[in-house]
Amino acid sequence: MSGLLDLNSDLAEGFGIWRLGDDDALLEVVTSANVACGFHAGDASTMRRVCAVAAERGVVVGAQVSYRDLAGFGRRFIDVEPGQLADEVLYQIGALEACARASGTRVGYVKPHGALYNTAVRHTAQAGAIVAGVRAFGALPVLGLPGSELLAAAERAGLEPVLEAFADRGYTPEGTLVPRSEPGAVLGSTAEVVERAVRLATEGEIVAVDGTVLKVGARSLCLHGDTPGAVEMARAVRAELGARDVTVRPFVQHN
Amino acid sequence: MSGLLDLNSDLAEGFGIWRLGDDDALLEVVTSANVACGFHAGDASTMRRVCAVAAERGVVVGAQVSYRDLAGFGRRFIDVEPGQLADEVLYQIGALEACARASGTRVGYVKPHGALYNTAVRHTAQAGAIVAGVRAFGALPVLGLPGSELLAAAERAGLEPVLEAFADRGYTPEGTLVPRSEPGAVLGSTAEVVERAVRLATEGEIVAVDGTVLKVGARSLCLHGDTPGAVEMARAVRAELGARDVTVRPFVQHN
Amino acid sequence: MSGLLDLNSDLAEGFGIWRLGDDDALLEVVTSANVACGFHAGDASTMRRVCAVAAERGVVVGAQVSYRDLAGFGRRFIDVEPGQLADEVLYQIGALEACARASGTRVGYVKPHGALYNTAVRHTAQAGAIVAGVRAFGALPVLGLPGSELLAAAERAGLEPVLEAFADRGYTPEGTLVPRSEPGAVLGSTAEVVERAVRLATEGEIVAVDGTVLKVGARSLCLHGDTPGAVEMARAVRAELGARDVTVRPFVQHN
Amino acid sequence: MSGLLDLNSDLAEGFGIWRLGDDDALLEVVTSANVACGFHAGDASTMRRVCAVAAERGVVVGAQVSYRDLAGFGRRFIDVEPGQLADEVLYQIGALEACARASGTRVGYVKPHGALYNTAVRHTAQAGAIVAGVRAFGALPVLGLPGSELLAAAERAGLEPVLEAFADRGYTPEGTLVPRSEPGAVLGSTAEVVERAVRLATEGEIVAVDGTVLKVGARSLCLHGDTPGAVEMARAVRAELGARDVTVRPFVQHN
Repeated sequence: MSGLLDLNSDLAEGFGIWRLGDDDALLEVVTSANVACGFHAGDASTMRRVCAVAAERGVVVGAQVSYRDLAGFGRRFIDVEPGQLADEVLYQIGALEACARASGTRVGYVKPHGALYNTAVRHTAQAGAIVAGVRAFGALPVLGLPGSELLAAAERAGLEPVLEAFADRGYTPEGTLVPRSEPGAVLGSTAEVVERAVRLATEGEIVAVDGTVLKVGARSLCLHGDTPGAVEMARAVRAELGARDVTVRPFVQHN
Repeated sequence: MSGLLDLNSDLAEGFGIWRLGDDDALLEVVTSANVACGFHAGDASTMRRVCAVAAERGVVVGAQVSYRDLAGFGRRFIDVEPGQLADEVLYQIGALEACARASGTRVGYVKPHGALYNTAVRHTAQAGAIVAGVRAFGALPVLGLPGSELLAAAERAGLEPVLEAFADRGYTPEGTLVPRSEPGAVLGSTAEVVERAVRLATEGEIVAVDGTVLKVGARSLCLHGDTPGAVEMARAVRAELGARDVTVRPFVQHN
Repeated sequence: MSGLLDLNSDLAEGFGIWRLGDDDALLEVVTSANVACGFHAGDASTMRRVCAVAAERGVVVGAQVSYRDLAGFGRRFIDVEPGQLADEVLYQIGALEACARASGTRVGYVKPHGALYNTAVRHTAQAGAIVAGVRAFGALPVLGLPGSELLAAAERAGLEPVLEAFADRGYTPEGTLVPRSEPGAVLGSTAEVVERAVRLATEGEIVAVDGTVLKVGARSLCLHGDTPGAVEMARAVRAELGARDVTVRPFVQHN
Repeated sequence: MSGLLDLNSDLAEGFGIWRLGDDDALLEVVTSANVACGFHAGDASTMRRVCAVAAERGVVVGAQVSYRDLAGFGRRFIDVEPGQLADEVLYQIGALEACARASGTRVGYVKPHGALYNTAVRHTAQAGAIVAGVRAFGALPVLGLPGSELLAAAERAGLEPVLEAFADRGYTPEGTLVPRSEPGAVLGSTAEVVERAVRLATEGEIVAVDGTVLKVGARSLCLHGDTPGAVEMARAVRAELGARDVTVRPFVQHN
């Protein structure tokens, strides 16, 4: 049995004196780093430092673009005008690209953060704005939720859509995530999460809350970094994938 | 009689709903645009728009990097740690570069803004930090005050130092600017300012407040854009330079 | 023929170096000043200065509370959690109260700004949050749109709801404002606006776009300050109200 | 042997999603809470929550005013114009006062934070600006370093200067703090820190790095909250003061 999987996680999400999550530990586990770009978190020094470590370890740097909302950590929907949102996406990617280049790497993909990620699942105008911002920068892959408007817009615009899955989140039979307000939304058992990650990598399957087996073409698995026990869970997933002969590597191959 | 001169001005210094100066008018006069990068002014949409117009008109885009200080418009000294300042300079250049590239141009030089400009005249650590930030991005020319620590640090680091002069500011016999608190600091007569610009372009000379003739190797002349009558003054300077057969062109030549 | 009317306008909406509108001119016209509190605009010095002039002229100071959104000038809906919104409203009123007290006056009422104003027309949770924030501060009147959820929530909470009208905006037969995207939304003729203001003050009536005569119990008329010709329009309204023996005075009477 | 001492600590220094220190634990130890007011840290919800707990426990709320500098946590000197600094101090106190009043208490004193605290030791203009801001609000005591320009300015202005000491910091024979860059700046042993706190409370003495016994009239002892082991150290100090019959109570007595 074998397989192929990328592991991504949100990084550089401190700001100034404040820290969030354990960047160093996660950079030893993941193959793709969603680096905050200063709009919901991530000051220039943190961004640069994470890029440097990522470059050293062969972790691909992605731009984790967000609404401009430090006070809300990018977790509240903001009704930004699409043209402005596209410009802000471009700005964020550019700032991160400079940090990445300074360490000999570059931005390999884009993934929206928080409320922007969730909004882009259905909100055509903002999904299109994100894609417009990415295209203004260059032909980067876009990482997002399978079935989302974001990935559809990316594909229409000639950008590579990359599907991701969540091993620690419950799925509905329709393949969407169980809302956090409902039972089964978050899986807490490491054993279970690890097993789901392995099945995803080897079979391309995730089991929904009602037992339905979903075929998901996810090339990347999102690991959370800012919850208690997150690092241990991430390490366990990575270790078990290795033990099962799954090749864990970035979905972006810099040449 | 002939000569060669670049004209630079601070642009994109609005933020959100707020405007400052007349970007469109100045983009018809200057050959180098010091574009605010979001730290003292300049939101993503304004930056991108100014880059687009600049690209269209052959005006070179420069990064007008600043302290992070929207509330103070970058006009107050901040005792930032040099490593962090370098990172913030890199971040700002990167963000602007993305805006410039989206319009088919790129950042051609760097000029610090406001208090950072003034500080970098003497403050070795912050001057060095600016240069370190520029170098982390790439080998861009640095525009600054003749005799400043900034230009010395740029030269030591292998970056091209570009000297600028001010036609509307009084000079001491030593070649420094007369402080704004003293008489003769600012010249208000258009005729006089125009004459000084012409003499600078054709003879490389500026006359100090006491009549001393200073030899200054300035390749660029800074035109202010946010004072009453500034646009008219800028237009008069440009017109008269043309009438005197001075070639007005960017000091950066993109190939 | 006589009547009674308050005139309110948005003031202190600059930030740092940036200005918006002509505070001094409007402070000679209005009787109630909606002072920005730092979240969408309004730095401490501007707030304090406007409070000082208002106090001197007997203009009542109101807290123009907003989403935390300098970059968007508070004009974009933000899906803030209601508890947090209430706290932010409280914070803003308190900051303004200190500025007002320093000039011998105090905050007399609260009016939400921009997108928060518009949201509070229908959004029960955010309307309730605004009212909760006001109540946490004290029993201040709330200025808002007739028929809005905001004023209903204020009334339920024991706060005085104060209705306002717009002489320069078109009304539907149902008494709501014609959306800005539709014809008839904004009235440009000074004569017409002045006439509507007078009729409102003397008869309590506004004529809708289809000719329907609306009875509106508005005690305050909102005058815009940041559009071209706004100050002249405001002066004309005030002058004509005086000429028609309408008493123009604040709806809040500080004792 | 007996004595009297206030214990103060910096609280509410998170922002949005980010936390710093353990507010709840420290609110069980200190008698005066220096509450961040939103300029270097402290969002409205955190401020209000800390005020509520403080009120419940009889801990006095003080305004920990700062430079406007979230990115630098208020730890960098900013060359703010004094008039503006005074206005910003007033704004911050007012915002906190509203939060405090909502919990039935009020702001009892003011203490500058970080770089503003350090600057106000010698910088006459900024020290005077802080005092001007406090006076504009009302006659609050000012907590600061013995011998500082801040306390001198407070006294001249008719405000009560309150001296504080640091049990975990080394003192020079002149009574100033040993700079953090020098040996002996920070004391790490809990036993030693506790002993110094007791001697300060009972004898009014602190021993300098060279053995000189300093007589300091400190009425308050500052306990740090954001370093490893800080909470345990604070608890140990409080416990030992109690064991030695030192009365630990706020220096401000709300009536």
